[in-house]
Amino acid sequence: MNKRWQKLIRSLHNKKFRKKENLFLVEGAKNILELIKSDLEIEGLFYTEEFQEEQHTVLEQLSCEQEVASDDVLKKVGTFQSNNSGIAVVKTPENAPLNLDNQVVIALDDVRDPGNLGTIIRIADWYGVKQVLCSLNCADWYNPKVINASMGSFTRVKPYYIDLKEYLVGLSDEVMVYGTFMNGINVQQAKVTKPAILIFGNESNGISTEVADLVHVKLTIPRRGMAESLNVSIAAAVVCDNVFRSLT
Amino acid sequence: MNKRWQKLIRSLHNKKFRKKENLFLVEGAKNILELIKSDLEIEGLFYTEEFQEEQHTVLEQLSCEQEVASDDVLKKVGTFQSNNSGIAVVKTPENAPLNLDNQVVIALDDVRDPGNLGTIIRIADWYGVKQVLCSLNCADWYNPKVINASMGSFTRVKPYYIDLKEYLVGLSDEVMVYGTFMNGINVQQAKVTKPAILIFGNESNGISTEVADLVHVKLTIPRRGMAESLNVSIAAAVVCDNVFRSLT
Repeated sequence: MNKRWQKLIRSLHNKKFRKKENLFLVEGAKNILELIKSDLEIEGLFYTEEFQEEQHTVLEQLSCEQEVASDDVLKKVGTFQSNNSGIAVVKTPENAPLNLDNQVVIALDDVRDPGNLGTIIRIADWYGVKQVLCSLNCADWYNPKVINASMGSFTRVKPYYIDLKEYLVGLSDEVMVYGTFMNGINVQQAKVTKPAILIFGNESNGISTEVADLVHVKLTIPRRGMAESLNVSIAAAVVCDNVFRSLT
Repeated sequence: MNKRWQKLIRSLHNKKFRKKENLFLVEGAKNILELIKSDLEIEGLFYTEEFQEEQHTVLEQLSCEQEVASDDVLKKVGTFQSNNSGIAVVKTPENAPLNLDNQVVIALDDVRDPGNLGTIIRIADWYGVKQVLCSLNCADWYNPKVINASMGSFTRVKPYYIDLKEYLVGLSDEVMVYGTFMNGINVQQAKVTKPAILIFGNESNGISTEVADLVHVKLTIPRRGMAESLNVSIAAAVVCDNVFRSLT
């Protein structure tokens, strides 16, 4: 791997350079294999000999720049503590507006932790949610920790970063807006109708007041024990499980 | 904070010393306040002046050794990147056998990630599950990352570390054993009966073959999208939500 690539990859750990270059990193076997199957555009792909041997039929069909690199170099330039598979440099897709037609969409209000965002992308993909609205103060979708936690689901679920309050104010009346709160109706009994937006809030503060005012139906996950709250990604999974059950 | 405490606290980052001293660490305001309300025995408690001012009525009632410490010292000896509340040194409770009588218990087969274990403790607490069986190769319940991710729920949920296969082999016939697999029955339609054990498996490999052979009912979370799997803590939450719905 030449110095130019090394420097570029290292710079992409950082949001500022991801924005500037319009590129992001994909690391690890599972994520890279999902990436290759997707329509995302790969600029450069670097992998170990071991990965090349295992995946040579897949790799031969790829037209992007590609090269073997040692575990050591991958470790040095990437974000993993060890990397025996590879690193890809990928073009960031457009921030494309949502298609709400007959859809259920997840919206995140100030979800800051990259692990939570990545896990929510994976949950969205499990339940067939294709789009996630992110408020402008959410973690960056293209943060390597997000991509990694998504376990390949970043290839199938698309983000749309926008001022969430403004977006909700401008919505057509037929879109139902749901949010998770401590004092809503039991999500197990809620009847959700499409098109729908399911909002989840910040790790410490939940959904912000200005966004809460725009929620039509407050949902609550029934509690039987004593824990004060659930992690936001856990709440997202339980709500999705209930919502998609009530839709089918 | 004297040198002896500093040395002790630092040694408790490490499982070997936690075992040897029979002590573990609790850090952060939320966890410490839950700890104080619990029946766990505190050996020493160190907190910032700010925490002392906020919590003086609570702290005055405590009979353990306690002392003000600076943020800097707390940061130096603890595991947090910053700590403006405190650190407690706590006696590890006994590894007490389960009471299965009319209970639903969670069992973990080789769950390695401390964040997942802590999140599962919080989920157990939310759904009123009081005990978690851990196979001997699970992450250590008293790892600071586990305690932290549990958000205080470690005070209400108790672990029991044991050879999981042997334990299941020795169970009475009336205990139903459930596990989450890719090819089981839809958890939304499953009728769970008490006493029950709900098993969740390793992050990469799921439930091990030897434990899988002892499961009576295989459960599956219905998938509508394309993600290959769900994170184990996410799966635990969705299964608990469904199981406790079917029980009530």
